[in-house]
Amino acid sequence: MIGGGHLLDVDTLSRAETERVLDLAVEMRAARGTPTCRSLLEAETVGLAFYEASTRTRVSFELAAKALGATVVDLHVAGSSVGKGESLIDTLRTLERTGVTALVLRHGAAGAPYLAARCTGMAVVNAGDGMHAHPTQALLDALTLREAIGPLDGRVIAIVGDVAHSRVARSNLHVLVSLGARVRLGGPAAWVSGFEGHPAVEVATTIHDALVGADAVMTLRVQRERSRTGDVRSLREYVERWRLDEARMQLAAANAPILHPGPTNEGVELTGQLANGRRSLIGRQVENGVPVRMAVLALVSGAA
Amino acid sequence: MIGGGHLLDVDTLSRAETERVLDLAVEMRAARGTPTCRSLLEAETVGLAFYEASTRTRVSFELAAKALGATVVDLHVAGSSVGKGESLIDTLRTLERTGVTALVLRHGAAGAPYLAARCTGMAVVNAGDGMHAHPTQALLDALTLREAIGPLDGRVIAIVGDVAHSRVARSNLHVLVSLGARVRLGGPAAWVSGFEGHPAVEVATTIHDALVGADAVMTLRVQRERSRTGDVRSLREYVERWRLDEARMQLAAANAPILHPGPTNEGVELTGQLANGRRSLIGRQVENGVPVRMAVLALVSGAA
Amino acid sequence: MIGGGHLLDVDTLSRAETERVLDLAVEMRAARGTPTCRSLLEAETVGLAFYEASTRTRVSFELAAKALGATVVDLHVAGSSVGKGESLIDTLRTLERTGVTALVLRHGAAGAPYLAARCTGMAVVNAGDGMHAHPTQALLDALTLREAIGPLDGRVIAIVGDVAHSRVARSNLHVLVSLGARVRLGGPAAWVSGFEGHPAVEVATTIHDALVGADAVMTLRVQRERSRTGDVRSLREYVERWRLDEARMQLAAANAPILHPGPTNEGVELTGQLANGRRSLIGRQVENGVPVRMAVLALVSGAA
Repeated sequence: MIGGGHLLDVDTLSRAETERVLDLAVEMRAARGTPTCRSLLEAETVGLAFYEASTRTRVSFELAAKALGATVVDLHVAGSSVGKGESLIDTLRTLERTGVTALVLRHGAAGAPYLAARCTGMAVVNAGDGMHAHPTQALLDALTLREAIGPLDGRVIAIVGDVAHSRVARSNLHVLVSLGARVRLGGPAAWVSGFEGHPAVEVATTIHDALVGADAVMTLRVQRERSRTGDVRSLREYVERWRLDEARMQLAAANAPILHPGPTNEGVELTGQLANGRRSLIGRQVENGVPVRMAVLALVSGAA
Repeated sequence: MIGGGHLLDVDTLSRAETERVLDLAVEMRAARGTPTCRSLLEAETVGLAFYEASTRTRVSFELAAKALGATVVDLHVAGSSVGKGESLIDTLRTLERTGVTALVLRHGAAGAPYLAARCTGMAVVNAGDGMHAHPTQALLDALTLREAIGPLDGRVIAIVGDVAHSRVARSNLHVLVSLGARVRLGGPAAWVSGFEGHPAVEVATTIHDALVGADAVMTLRVQRERSRTGDVRSLREYVERWRLDEARMQLAAANAPILHPGPTNEGVELTGQLANGRRSLIGRQVENGVPVRMAVLALVSGAA
Repeated sequence: MIGGGHLLDVDTLSRAETERVLDLAVEMRAARGTPTCRSLLEAETVGLAFYEASTRTRVSFELAAKALGATVVDLHVAGSSVGKGESLIDTLRTLERTGVTALVLRHGAAGAPYLAARCTGMAVVNAGDGMHAHPTQALLDALTLREAIGPLDGRVIAIVGDVAHSRVARSNLHVLVSLGARVRLGGPAAWVSGFEGHPAVEVATTIHDALVGADAVMTLRVQRERSRTGDVRSLREYVERWRLDEARMQLAAANAPILHPGPTNEGVELTGQLANGRRSLIGRQVENGVPVRMAVLALVSGAA
């Protein structure tokens, strides 16, 4: 990773490296607001380059960087000279040359953060690239899970929804397996194909098989703009067969918690009752976003 | 209010509470730039969520928060995942969970700030909600008036224009009456209807009746996008009958000042000569925006 | 200028004033990050008002202001109440009244910064106005050139491209001549007309005449949206006759460097090989943007 000054994906993180991020996030949560914490990155400049719209991830990174005392500059891509046809590499090299030391990049093209890491000297944090990876989301999910159900060794974590098109699912799969969990991917066949041979991964194509005995359940946002099943008929069918509710959750282990990367489509991926009920860790996921990103920014900047 | 950690409207503020805000604003104006002032809200994070475009109000709140040392994060709603269909409540809960402690909210729907206060634990400041209220505008207007003409007890303040659709007028009415003033609402009958029975309020449907003897005159922006009289004929008629100019201002008390919440349509609500002349308090209103908002942010955050 | 608290153009800067900016920029580059530097403008508020999209110039000014400890507020014009039809002057007066002390203005209308300087009390820095001037670009170009080839007295600097429509060319011409250089303007006849009588300026309408013996070459962005030759045929003809490549650069002095204000259209104004090769100062130009703008902000604010 992170040893190399970047967080491009979680697929190369060792268990020890992942646990180091989570442990540091716990420390960051406690230290937020102290003078030491506020000066940790005071020599660094963090650039935010979100080529895809985002509220929670952008705000979370911005507050993480500010909590560490970094100078923050936002590219505001929508209104930038990207409109003039400037290439991504040109833009990123410009950021580096103005003094940006760490880049937080969200981009619609898978692999864009690798390009940034190869073509510039900035520390690069992938904040979501196409359908490829969303490392900090997976790390904050792992922290949330660990704090809710304890060590993940041998635990069964079900991920339900359009896994095939989800960078969140892909990154979670890597992190969870690395932490010793068994991952069960559930959804319509077209949404879970391609994962059959993966070690420590099971594929389930009925809601029963997906949930039975699961120690925790994560459901994914239905991305109407991205999935192949954006039409109403498919959506109705998905809701009928896969929407999580309290009754279906009875299939899972007692008190198994529910996670969602947000923003939720209540009534589609899960019922409002479930999203706002006692099983829900959705709020806790958002809360863990800032300390996890503080930890990541500190690590890639060599300040942790 | 403000005691409750929010400023949602001015209709529940007692005279003492209103005067406390104005007095504190005067202190803030003097203290701006001092180290004490700059550290007052250093433990707070102020979130700016402007769902309606704004220059002066947003910049004014942003500079107020920064002058008090708060961390500031702007939602930049236009480019946010609101586009993904995230609900207002989800967005605001996300802000809270990332560490935002005080929310400055402008929204096209009347009542949105009440929703925010009910559904989150953040201190909420209403920066304008639909046609309902614009509390900080009314408070800065009151401060501007008090400094220009002295205590408002028994003074006649005329508010001229599309009162019925104006959150500025509505909030001013509450604050001015609470400070002992008599408010006269002037405009075409359709624009001032519904206020007839209000204590301490007179309704005037001719420019003569509106201005005669007034100690100060506030004119409202003609909101072409909002009013029912957006057509050219009505606009021409409004200008003819209601536009304020130096001659008409002779009806008011000697040296009666003129206010406008801005931005002005010079030549429509008032002449450029009046807007830029010696009676005008328009610039002073903008200047008072920052200290009034500093006072409000300090009070709702419990730091004053 | 700058003595007057503004940087509106470079055409009135004496050689001594220009050299003072460049020398101060060198100091700023070394001092960036030190506590003294970080507190130099801590009493100032810098407003960024970019009415035309920009990445590098806006980010560069923002980081310059933050490196000096100023409070920074960005107007985000696209999403502001400019949409409500507020005039430029009203907007700028509002900024001043909220406490902005120095304004960085980019505007499509030539002369807008002069208006700002005349109608407000803020220190005004022109960040590009129409086809008129781009003072900080020319200053950073001069610093880059001075550091690459030494004192400019008697040196021949070729500026190639659509000079007639370029604020970058216009400002460079003034600064370079003021520093003792001889400026050669090269391009299709329509693009270099009107400069014939200028002292210390030569006009060249073939690539040979433009480059031969030049000590450095600056090529301009082809502004398809602005030039009269936006059609494909003209573009192809421009590339054929004027695109800079390693072979054509042999006409210039040995090791003559190449500059470009960015963002480049590689393959149009120059080849990628040249842009990324050992002659290229393009990255260095961007790097010099922040210290030059630090120097300018410090000077106009009276803090240097």
